[in-house]
Order: sequence, then structure tokens, then C-alpha cells
Amino acid sequence: MTDESGVSMEKLVSLCKRRGFVYPSSEIYGGLSATWDYGPLGVELKKNIQEIWWKEMTRTQDNIVGLDAAIMMHPKTWEASGHVANFSDPLVDCKKCKTRFREDKLEQQYVDNKECPECGGELTEPRNFNLMFSTQMGAVEDSSMKVYLRPETAQGIFVNFKNVVDTSRVKIPFGIAQVGKAFRNEITTKNFIFRTCEFEQMEMQFFVKPGTDEKWFEYWMEARKAYYTEKLGVRPTHLQFHRHGEGELAFYAKDAFDIEYKFPFGWEELEGIHSRTDYDLSQHSKFCGKEINYLDQETNEWYIPYVIETSAGLTRSVLIALTDAYEEETIGVDKKGNPDVRTVLHFHPDVAPVKVAVLPLVKKDGIDELAKSIEKELREDYNTFYDQSGAIGKRYRRMDEIGTPFCITVDYDSKEDDSVTLRFRDSMEQVRVKRSELSARIKLEMKNYKRVNK
Amino acid sequence: MTDESGVSMEKLVSLCKRRGFVYPSSEIYGGLSATWDYGPLGVELKKNIQEIWWKEMTRTQDNIVGLDAAIMMHPKTWEASGHVANFSDPLVDCKKCKTRFREDKLEQQYVDNKECPECGGELTEPRNFNLMFSTQMGAVEDSSMKVYLRPETAQGIFVNFKNVVDTSRVKIPFGIAQVGKAFRNEITTKNFIFRTCEFEQMEMQFFVKPGTDEKWFEYWMEARKAYYTEKLGVRPTHLQFHRHGEGELAFYAKDAFDIEYKFPFGWEELEGIHSRTDYDLSQHSKFCGKEINYLDQETNEWYIPYVIETSAGLTRSVLIALTDAYEEETIGVDKKGNPDVRTVLHFHPDVAPVKVAVLPLVKKDGIDELAKSIEKELREDYNTFYDQSGAIGKRYRRMDEIGTPFCITVDYDSKEDDSVTLRFRDSMEQVRVKRSELSARIKLEMKNYKRVNK
Repeated sequence: MTDESGVSMEKLVSLCKRRGFVYPSSEIYGGLSATWDYGPLGVELKKNIQEIWWKEMTRTQDNIVGLDAAIMMHPKTWEASGHVANFSDPLVDCKKCKTRFREDKLEQQYVDNKECPECGGELTEPRNFNLMFSTQMGAVEDSSMKVYLRPETAQGIFVNFKNVVDTSRVKIPFGIAQVGKAFRNEITTKNFIFRTCEFEQMEMQFFVKPGTDEKWFEYWMEARKAYYTEKLGVRPTHLQFHRHGEGELAFYAKDAFDIEYKFPFGWEELEGIHSRTDYDLSQHSKFCGKEINYLDQETNEWYIPYVIETSAGLTRSVLIALTDAYEEETIGVDKKGNPDVRTVLHFHPDVAPVKVAVLPLVKKDGIDELAKSIEKELREDYNTFYDQSGAIGKRYRRMDEIGTPFCITVDYDSKEDDSVTLRFRDSMEQVRVKRSELSARIKLEMKNYKRVNK
Repeated sequence: MTDESGVSMEKLVSLCKRRGFVYPSSEIYGGLSATWDYGPLGVELKKNIQEIWWKEMTRTQDNIVGLDAAIMMHPKTWEASGHVANFSDPLVDCKKCKTRFREDKLEQQYVDNKECPECGGELTEPRNFNLMFSTQMGAVEDSSMKVYLRPETAQGIFVNFKNVVDTSRVKIPFGIAQVGKAFRNEITTKNFIFRTCEFEQMEMQFFVKPGTDEKWFEYWMEARKAYYTEKLGVRPTHLQFHRHGEGELAFYAKDAFDIEYKFPFGWEELEGIHSRTDYDLSQHSKFCGKEINYLDQETNEWYIPYVIETSAGLTRSVLIALTDAYEEETIGVDKKGNPDVRTVLHFHPDVAPVKVAVLPLVKKDGIDELAKSIEKELREDYNTFYDQSGAIGKRYRRMDEIGTPFCITVDYDSKEDDSVTLRFRDSMEQVRVKRSELSARIKLEMKNYKRVNK
């Protein structure tokens, strides 16, 4: 059996392509290395993760509301946030071989000697390269406006703080949650969908009374840690946490906490919880010339709220779900005496793109029609897949490989006893279930799911 | 009673702002007129419509799969599609007052006389202005790439046709569905969220064998007509259909059919069904230098499929849901003898952002705690709202105005008989329901919903 954390990126990328999770973007034109397209299974996987987060962060909370701000915002937003001035990488070029580097990622000796690590040539002085994509809005040259594609979703929440307070009957402490795309002109995109120019964030900004921020920082730290194991079904051993020391904090931040995941390429950040004080609202207040504050109706006091931010990556969560679920499992020996290995994705059923596969044992004698009618029935409640081609064992394996938690086999007995075989992905156990009880049984199994690696 | 189609845009925009459906984007900076932000209710409304479409177009179909391609695609895509060469408006400027016009929208006399309709000044020669937003990807000046923000989602489907066929076990006829953002640098954005620079499309491309395209065109025409009344709950009298004559068709199109909606500003397109032949796949084949075709496994024949496209606007659908639901209804006289008018949004329950409001009659004697516990219970299944402030009549009106189909009132009797009052938005009728039966009853009412305008 492969070590549980032993999946290589090569295997993962290959599985993703082969089974329709993720394709290189615009592949027929040689691909655009910075972006990726989500195929039929990938789009369902991503939607499921988004839905789990949304439910967890809005619907089951009585003090968090949603928002969906535009990608294109007024350019002053990015002056206020500091992105125009500071969201940049220092780049140096080798005058000889023309290779470009981020100076802050070079070993100190190359920086000190202004020397190219590739060819030893002379490096240029560093130039700051802003990571925001810009475009022109409006057709008239002299009145057109330079706008940016947002590099993060958070600012859409801050600029709408007053609107939400005025229209939603929310009272501090309360949060605003948002899922959406953000764009960064990364010098080096890498590690599949981990770092890309176009990505999706799931952010929640929680507004609190100054003085209560430390309490709420602790609260969200614990809540977000629990989310990954309990809601996404991630293995605890693949998570680690890092609280920033004073020297590591951004100048406006009071506290910061990273949730890191053990990717095949090492530990990397998956979510950040940040205590941002009143920095953001104060900045926007300054740049827009209006007060952005909050009236405490009990004390009749106005104040600028403090912010606790939880900022997670949706596209990164997709990569985690895949990595964490992957297993190559030896389940016996084949006819030649070689190890019989199945590839299985142990997705939490809420995460799995296909919940139920319906498989007629044979495609004749009405077995296929019966299977089809069962599939149609289940479709109302679950994302289903119907497959009638190939040996039943092969069909199980195909479903294991895309992480389908339940397979239903329809056989000759089914016509007599109105029952089917329900097969569980992780344990490969099979039970006989009445057709009339199928949907409820699957619902129950989903609710009580505990991961079993055989 | 207001005429059923009599809602003005002013009223709608005002309601949307006031109740948190839609805010002007980056409003604190004076707004970016071309885009809008969706508030707490707007984001749920939009999500619901998207989910209804997705379920209708993928989950309940056995031959349509989903896709989610990146916004940034390889620039060759837009050469192949014709957008680089042809996706432009002819613009003329007045040399005197500097106003800019789309020449194709000017009355013929002004075009003929090259004369400004505003001030009579001389107009410049028309210049073609491409509507695609462009940006630079990559940090190195000479190797950076001009990329476009996609002006439509359709091409993401066409360039992935082969990938989907190779990885998804789909067989023609089959479809690929996608929801996503698209961007157009419109000269004049107008009519609230109807025409904006940043918008969302819901498109499905259905691939068929040449010769069967006419049959499938008819099929999708009927299916998409039915969707608006049956699934979105739109009034049939607010829909009209327009099949294009030969002179109106794009050069590659074999047939085209518009579904139009009666907006407050007139009849405008909501969805287009297009018979696109093999134009798109052939173009991409030509530009990428690879065959893009399909092997019919029964006849062992290769062919380039024909495409039937259904292309709907998600942001437009939001506007339709709001417009169509809006009513100012006189429901009696007030104490002074004046008409008592309520504003109500008759959303289909599947569309409504809040499904159930839970309202304790008083906020004491444990009635509020009981109401809160009922609300917590219902949250697992529905998007709920808890409101304990103000007279009960006022609270009902607030819920009517945001289209909440069900209000649950918890009173002193509730403590005794374990029942609550269920009030229906449209009819304003009230029935007593056992707490244990509430969730199932709401589910049933949602399923059987028929719109009633009192």
C-alpha cells in the first residue's frame, strides 16, 4: 500500500485530466499555463466545496450574511487598500541570459554580488512589478479609466460595509461572507492549481467591537480548524497550524494564524485567519472622505469596528480534497499472483462529485430498464451516474477512482425482491436494500460517514 | 392595484438598494456605473436561479455534463471565434461637442449628413472599437502576452469539446453546460443590471449529428420556453418569442430563436437558442491545427458535430425574477380610510432568497427562545430569517417586500399545543401546524406552489 500521503503531483494531474476533473486551460492552443479549466467532475467537486463552506459560514450562522461584489471595482479601492503602492514583487533581470528572478526569493549571495544564479551574469537593479492585472474601461481615450481585476475579494466586503449595515438589520458582532474569483499576475505559477493567475477565494470578514477582537480571533481560529476535519473530511495529520510571531505580522495586523496543509510539494498555506484591526475601514474612510463607522444602539456610541478575517482558497481546497482523498490500495492478488491495486478517492460524500452510481448487472432482460428507472428516481436527490458497460468489477473500480461513495447494483433478484445491492466505496462491503428505502438509506449513510481506509 | 406590469425601474432599483438585493458597485467611491454588487439577499437570489438552471440543465438530464473554464483563455481562441476581428462597434465622435455615438444606433439622416444629433457639429469617420477587455499576462515586457477577458462563456466549451468526449463517456447527442462571468466594454451600460460590463451567462452547447440538428433545435426551443414559466415561475404574458428570419441570421447560423421578456423598459432578449452548425468546432480545428471531430461508434464514421446553443443571462434572470415578482397590492383601507397598500415580491419559493421567517409574537415569557429553537431546526433545510422587533403586521410586510413565501409565528398557544401559525405570502392565509410537521409541510407547499396574486 502506498504511504497515505504519498501521492505525487504527476499522478494527481494525470488522474485529473484522464477522468475529467481538471484540464489545462485552452489546451488545444498549447494551454495557458497560468489557468486551468474544470471538467464535468471538477465543476461538481468545486461546487460542492463552495456549498459546504457557504452553508457553514452563512446559513448555519445567525450573524453572517453573504455578498457578491463585482470583480471590477473603482480604482480608488486599490489605492486605499495599499495594493497600487505595495502589491508588487521586486524583479531583477540577468543582463546576459535575460532570465528574470524575484529578488526576494534569491539567495543572499546572489543579491549581494548582483550575480545571476544561472549563468553568473550581472543582474539589473530591482524593479517593482505590480501583481494586479489592469485594463481600460470605456471607449473614449481621454476619459477611459484604468481599472484592475481584483487581487482579493476582501475589499468588496469592506467597501460595502455601510450598505450591509444599513440594509440588513445586522448587529455587531456580525460577518459578511463572499466567494469569488481574484486575479494575480504571478511571475511563476506552479504546482498545478495551487498557484494560478486566476483563482477563487472564500472569505469572511467578521466585524467586532474593539476590545473583543482577541476573543473572536480565538473563536474563528478554532472554528476554522474544526471545519477542515469535520466538514471537508481532511485527515488531521495533514494539517498544521502556524501562529505568526510579532516579526512576521503585516504592519496593520494584530495577530495572524495560518492553516497549512501537507501537499505533495510540502506544507503550504490553505487559509489565513487575520486580526486586521480597523485598518481597512479607516483607510477606505480616508480615501472616500466619508465616515465608515457603526452605532452601538445600546451605548449610543459610534466606533470603527475591528475585523477578524478568515480567508480560504476555493481552488486550493479542490486540490486538498483530491490530494487528501487519494489512495492506491492493495486489496489482494490478481490471477497472476501480482498485487491487485485499486486507486480510490476517499472523498467525504458531501464533497464527492458523483454520489451514487447505478449499475445493471446485465444490459438485458429488463435489468437495464429497471436500473434506469431507479437512477431517475434518485436523481431528484443526488448527483447520479448510470453505467452499463463492462464487467461489474471494472465498473466498481471506475467509480472508486472518481470517489463515488455508493454503487447500486441491479440484478435478476432485484426483479423479484424489489431490492438492490448497495456497495460502499471505502469498505467495499455490500448490503441488500429495499428500493423504497434506498434514498433515505443513502441520506443516512452520508450523514454518518466516517472515513475508512482499508 | 398597480397594473401587474407597472413596476418602474426607479422603484425596483430603490427596493433593491434599500433591502440589500443590489448595490451600485464601489458606491463609496461614487460607483463604477458599469458594474453592480449583490447584497445579502441578491447573492442568495442569484445563487438560487443558478442552482435551478444547473439542476434543470445537468442533473436531471442524462446527457448533459457541466464545465467551468477559466475567464482568461489563450488569445488564439478569440481569433478563431472571430471576436478579435469582428466583435466591435463603429464609433463616431462629434468634433464640436466631443460626444461619442455608436454609428449603427444613429438615425440615418445624421449618418448621411455626418452631423451630431446633439449640437449639429461635424462627426468623425467611424472607427471600430473592440468590445473585449484586454490585459497583459506575464511580467516580462517582450514575452508578456495580451490576453482578453472572455466576452462569452461559449468558447470555453468548444475548446474543451475533445477533452470532455475523451474523459466523460458521453455519446452524441450530448451537451456541455457552463455558468460563468463574461466581460464586455460596453459603450453605454444601462437599465440597471440589464446591460453591464461584467455579467454572468448560463450557456449549454448541445452537440448533435448533422441532419438531426433541426429536430434538436425544436426540442430545445420548447424546453427553454417551458423552463421560464414552470421552473422560474415567470408569468406567461411577460414572455414573447421571436424566430429570426433569414435576413436576421448570423452568417454561420442556420436558425435562431429569442426568448424575450417584458422589462419595464420594453421587450428585450433574455435567452437565445441558436443553431450554429459546425462553425465553431471547424474554426477551432483550423486555428489549432488539429482535427476536432467525433467518432460515431455504431457507424464507425467520423464527423464534426453540429451545435444547438441555449444562451441565457444569469444577471438578466435576476432582474426578471425581481420585475416579474413585484406587485403593489391594495389589501384594504387603513385607519384613516386610505388604501392600505403592501409591496410584495411573488417569487417562486425555489427562487426566494429567504424561504422561512420565524417571528415570535412577543420577545418574552420564553416565546422568543421557543421561536429561536424552531428557527435553528429549520435552518438545516431552508434559508431562514429570525425577526423579533416591531408589530407582527409590520414584520409580515417586511417579509412580503423581500418575497419570503412562509412566515411562522410563535405565540403563547405554541407553548401549550406545540404548534405554530404558518402564514402564506401570496394569499396571506394562515394555518396552524404542528412543530414536528413544519419542515415537511413547507417542503410540500414549495413543491405544490402556484402563484396567487390576490
